[in-house]
Amino acid sequence: MEIISGDIEEAGLFLSGWLWIRGIPTNAVAKLVGIAQQARKIAADDPRKLIHSLKVGLALTLVSLFYYFQPLYSSFGVSAMWAVMTVVVVFEFSVGATLGKGLNRGLATLAAGALGLAAHHLATVTGKTCEPILIGLFVFLQAVASTFIRFFPRVKARYDYGMLIFILTFCLVSISGLRTDEILDLAQKRFSTIVIGASTCLTVSIFVYPVWAGEDLHKLVAKNIEKLGNFLEGFGREYFETANEKSHETRASMVGYKAILNSKATEESLVNFAKWEPRHGKFRYWHPWDQYLKIGTLTRECACRIDALNACLNSEMQAPLEIRRKMKEACTEMSWECSNALRELAVGIKTMTRSSPADPHMRKAESAANDLKSLLQTPMWPGSHLLDVCPAATVASLLIEIVSSTAKIADSVHELASLSKFKKPNAITPDQKENVTIIPVDNVNEGNVMIVVPHDNIESIDRSHQSSNE
Amino acid sequence: MEIISGDIEEAGLFLSGWLWIRGIPTNAVAKLVGIAQQARKIAADDPRKLIHSLKVGLALTLVSLFYYFQPLYSSFGVSAMWAVMTVVVVFEFSVGATLGKGLNRGLATLAAGALGLAAHHLATVTGKTCEPILIGLFVFLQAVASTFIRFFPRVKARYDYGMLIFILTFCLVSISGLRTDEILDLAQKRFSTIVIGASTCLTVSIFVYPVWAGEDLHKLVAKNIEKLGNFLEGFGREYFETANEKSHETRASMVGYKAILNSKATEESLVNFAKWEPRHGKFRYWHPWDQYLKIGTLTRECACRIDALNACLNSEMQAPLEIRRKMKEACTEMSWECSNALRELAVGIKTMTRSSPADPHMRKAESAANDLKSLLQTPMWPGSHLLDVCPAATVASLLIEIVSSTAKIADSVHELASLSKFKKPNAITPDQKENVTIIPVDNVNEGNVMIVVPHDNIESIDRSHQSSNE
Repeated sequence: MEIISGDIEEAGLFLSGWLWIRGIPTNAVAKLVGIAQQARKIAADDPRKLIHSLKVGLALTLVSLFYYFQPLYSSFGVSAMWAVMTVVVVFEFSVGATLGKGLNRGLATLAAGALGLAAHHLATVTGKTCEPILIGLFVFLQAVASTFIRFFPRVKARYDYGMLIFILTFCLVSISGLRTDEILDLAQKRFSTIVIGASTCLTVSIFVYPVWAGEDLHKLVAKNIEKLGNFLEGFGREYFETANEKSHETRASMVGYKAILNSKATEESLVNFAKWEPRHGKFRYWHPWDQYLKIGTLTRECACRIDALNACLNSEMQAPLEIRRKMKEACTEMSWECSNALRELAVGIKTMTRSSPADPHMRKAESAANDLKSLLQTPMWPGSHLLDVCPAATVASLLIEIVSSTAKIADSVHELASLSKFKKPNAITPDQKENVTIIPVDNVNEGNVMIVVPHDNIESIDRSHQSSNE
Repeated sequence: MEIISGDIEEAGLFLSGWLWIRGIPTNAVAKLVGIAQQARKIAADDPRKLIHSLKVGLALTLVSLFYYFQPLYSSFGVSAMWAVMTVVVVFEFSVGATLGKGLNRGLATLAAGALGLAAHHLATVTGKTCEPILIGLFVFLQAVASTFIRFFPRVKARYDYGMLIFILTFCLVSISGLRTDEILDLAQKRFSTIVIGASTCLTVSIFVYPVWAGEDLHKLVAKNIEKLGNFLEGFGREYFETANEKSHETRASMVGYKAILNSKATEESLVNFAKWEPRHGKFRYWHPWDQYLKIGTLTRECACRIDALNACLNSEMQAPLEIRRKMKEACTEMSWECSNALRELAVGIKTMTRSSPADPHMRKAESAANDLKSLLQTPMWPGSHLLDVCPAATVASLLIEIVSSTAKIADSVHELASLSKFKKPNAITPDQKENVTIIPVDNVNEGNVMIVVPHDNIESIDRSHQSSNE
């Protein structure tokens, strides 16, 4: 009996051990499949990441082979190393970041090289005893000062990498035991390799599917404003209607705003990169990048209010339907018109036109807010408890705040439009002319000009006229 | 007349030119004074930044002089360069960041060196024609794959620097035109210099005024919870009392919460650094660092509600004093008790004790919230307009949400306490014994134990008992 149970135990151990060993390849395969799926997802979400990888590979291969085939190239050459190092370290995702790092590296190397040379010279003329003491002192003082300067917020944002290279180059030059003319010779070689590396990076970065940080920032800000609009569009439907089948989809599209709450760091780094970028596409030199930060801050403020509104939507405390019905018209109008205004603003940013179509929506939203206020000014609705009114009142006042927040966003977008000279809404092209009516302006307002209006959009007088007043 | 005016003009130009030239030193001095003031402010706000700069200077001087005095050191030595480079690049503000970078650098150099050697060997055995093609191919494929892997979120968070060094080392080794044994010799030297550089960094970083990322994270999370408490303490006074002289000071201390809204990035990087750190102070290995992220998310959620509340405080639409007075008691109680609970939680985190003193405050806040709900359940106050009630109702429902948000924070802090085994509130020491009374537990609850209670704090039975139940 004992023998049998022992055998069974042994067999069991053996079996579990065998299953474990057999499980290794299965687990490994499952893990590899998981990684492959993740990789495919990353590439599908943003194909530019895959393209960037190919670009880095291209630049690196070019530089490596250039040095490999050089006639002077003998062994593990220091020069080749610096070029390869420059490519690996400088090549970043966007043109702005690459250019910023390249310039930082180049300029810091020059400045630190000159200063290091001076320090080295000063130390050598004092004689053999003082030399190491002086060099140690110079290295120490320079490292302390430069490291501390890296904590200055403005330096940290734009010149952090430059300061790092400054410290490095200064140390290398000043502790080198070479004669001044040897250092100069070496410095020249070193600098030319860095220039070769950096210019390979920049050429590949700019001419092969370039990724512009400025464009990304521009799109991100527009996208974020659109997300606010998406929430508000869904909100009117969700809060005042009974749940229907579409509900799940709508909810999913509504919570997109949550990403905005943590967008500050991304926006700031994009602005820093964008400032390095040369003129490209529709973006001129001195494009008002800082204005995007202002819009971003206002967008986040609005997203915070929307988050509170979302909490009301999911809260256990809900106003009864009859109370909601009383406010329904004004509230739906407010969220709908705000949503439209925000979307028009987003479209205006994306197409870089002055988005005055948003203004009529804003006016309607503001008048709906006033309607709501006067509705609330009527004496209390009899029979309703304050506890029932309370959540509805919260929604109402949050919506009122969101309207004023949207107005602020609209103002800052208009400011951006005028600062960066967005184009006016399209002038009428010759082939559109057949479809327009000419109406005397007296019908529109007090001016004495004739205005041409496309047949299919008489409403737009209001918009185009308004934009010309800006 | 003309001559005179010409003279005057010339004199004017001369004068303005002279003033401009004389202005240069003044402006330069003003700018320098500005920079000095900024530097003093940075150093005063966080003296550790100044200490860090001194530490970097120390480490760099040590390594530089070590190589300067080496007998084998002849010229601009490659070895010395690598040690200096390692110190400059690896030395970060906190121990965790330094250790993470050092390990990344070391391990990536080893792995890439081995792979690069294999690639190099494979290319050389295929013959002179195939060699450059194969090497180019290897460099390309490796760079593409590694660059793409850097986009994986988990790799980006912890191993980004390692991947960079991997690409660099692989390229350097595989394109080197050396024989395998030469490379091995070089690799050994290179690796030993990197180890010397990294260990100098770590020694200075750990033993000279260490900055622990984990400790910073711990303090930051506690501080943020405290800031929420500060707002709520001030809110009760500000909203329900008429303005008094203290108002400005209170307001200033209240808006501290705004920094919390954008704290996500800081917290995430601190968690990543903290995970590299060895056991130190009260933090063990496998300290539940991720739990801090959960608390941080809940804190930001609460800060978002508080931001909405702050908007109510500054809004133009204000409920009349008489309405506010009706809700005053319940609302003041809610914000006061929440504020106390949050502060107790913050103290609990700071001192690493189980902060059960927060629980009675939470219970009081929750019962006040119920009081408020039942107050609101009474029929409408006659004569008051809905527009007047509306802002008050918003404040009420926001406060109710904040109470539930605070309860969530309390739960997650308790979870942290049990996960990281915070100590129980102090056991009674012998010298406290004289001041305690022993009361039978029947007076407290159904248990059969005797409980000792300090004379001066009979209330605390409730707390200590409760904590022993956890």
